[in-house]
Amino acid sequence: MRTLYHYPLSPSSRRVRVALAEKGLEFESVIEQPWRRRPEFLALNPAGEVPVLVEDDETVVVGAAITEYLEDVHPKPPLLPACAKSRAEVRRLIQWFEIKFDREVTENLVGEKVIKRVSALGQPSGLAIRAGLANIHYHLDYITWLAERRTWLGGENFSQADIAAGAQLSAVDYCGLVPWSEYPEAKDWYARIKSRPSFRSLLTDFIPGVPPPPHYADLDF
Amino acid sequence: MRTLYHYPLSPSSRRVRVALAEKGLEFESVIEQPWRRRPEFLALNPAGEVPVLVEDDETVVVGAAITEYLEDVHPKPPLLPACAKSRAEVRRLIQWFEIKFDREVTENLVGEKVIKRVSALGQPSGLAIRAGLANIHYHLDYITWLAERRTWLGGENFSQADIAAGAQLSAVDYCGLVPWSEYPEAKDWYARIKSRPSFRSLLTDFIPGVPPPPHYADLDF
Repeated sequence: MRTLYHYPLSPSSRRVRVALAEKGLEFESVIEQPWRRRPEFLALNPAGEVPVLVEDDETVVVGAAITEYLEDVHPKPPLLPACAKSRAEVRRLIQWFEIKFDREVTENLVGEKVIKRVSALGQPSGLAIRAGLANIHYHLDYITWLAERRTWLGGENFSQADIAAGAQLSAVDYCGLVPWSEYPEAKDWYARIKSRPSFRSLLTDFIPGVPPPPHYADLDF
Repeated sequence: MRTLYHYPLSPSSRRVRVALAEKGLEFESVIEQPWRRRPEFLALNPAGEVPVLVEDDETVVVGAAITEYLEDVHPKPPLLPACAKSRAEVRRLIQWFEIKFDREVTENLVGEKVIKRVSALGQPSGLAIRAGLANIHYHLDYITWLAERRTWLGGENFSQADIAAGAQLSAVDYCGLVPWSEYPEAKDWYARIKSRPSFRSLLTDFIPGVPPPPHYADLDF
């Protein structure tokens, strides 16, 4: 028995959903709105954040640690490279997207435009949204730089680096705020990610009251 | 050849220094002030953050990924438990301290009182300092709760969970802002950490213009 507590537009939740699908691991899905601070959920993760994976009703794994846990316990197919040096590079990129991109882009766009609305936690900040819209260009430049030099973002093989980047961008894309047409190399890389079977469930996500734009689920966007 | 780029009061840098010392791994120390954004340093880590570990002049490992890298390449003595479930719990606590404690306490106290002064990046915010002083009580309560139930914070054995917590608290303690006398169990746990040989180098840290209080380096504090 495997249960994932997650929220559809949380990029770190998306990352775990894709990783589980890549590894062919089925799970029961519990959609958790972390801002509700449900006592049963806080008992699982006192930090009150998604995602949380529970395996065999007893092993509780939270947040970024799920990446490492999955490689430890369900190593095939690998989503981290075999050699330590390459693994360090993939982990660097995971942090880049999950911490830096999230703080500079996703929180400012998805956080302000969708999460604040759904959670009724406050009014969107125009300042934050403008910052997010400016910052995404630097990150798309960086993805372009990587995509021009490597088959996948972390190196020769598809890895957690691609999943981490795809998870962030797909959440922003749900809001229709990724300027794909200005970044053809980044768009080509994302088209490859988006067409993987493991990504399919993300493309059917639907937040009541905040529908995605038509291109969101379109593989030929 | 092993080089660590770090900043003395950066808790994640401290965590790596302690881990390297626990594993008996010597390194050349380069003190990096990340806010200077030195081009040579940005070439190593485009995110511009410490710590960065370079091994054999070619393997570059940044931030929290250093924990996993060290266990991969220098597994003895282990600083993560052998069983996957226990490892998940230690990794949960690493994230708790390195992300949550850091954001709620350390950035508000060390960030405002020391880093802003040393970097001349702005005036300390009284509001942030008051938040940090309030938040530290919740975290010391949590450490007390863990210390009452476990030999070390992550379980039976000393681990990266203790190092992560000790790294944060020692940085705040450098500013003399940990109310140890109100939390005897947390203090006992910290006294055990502080007396480990691996912690010694942290206790000799000295930021020019911002000396630590006398009890900072005192094992009998």
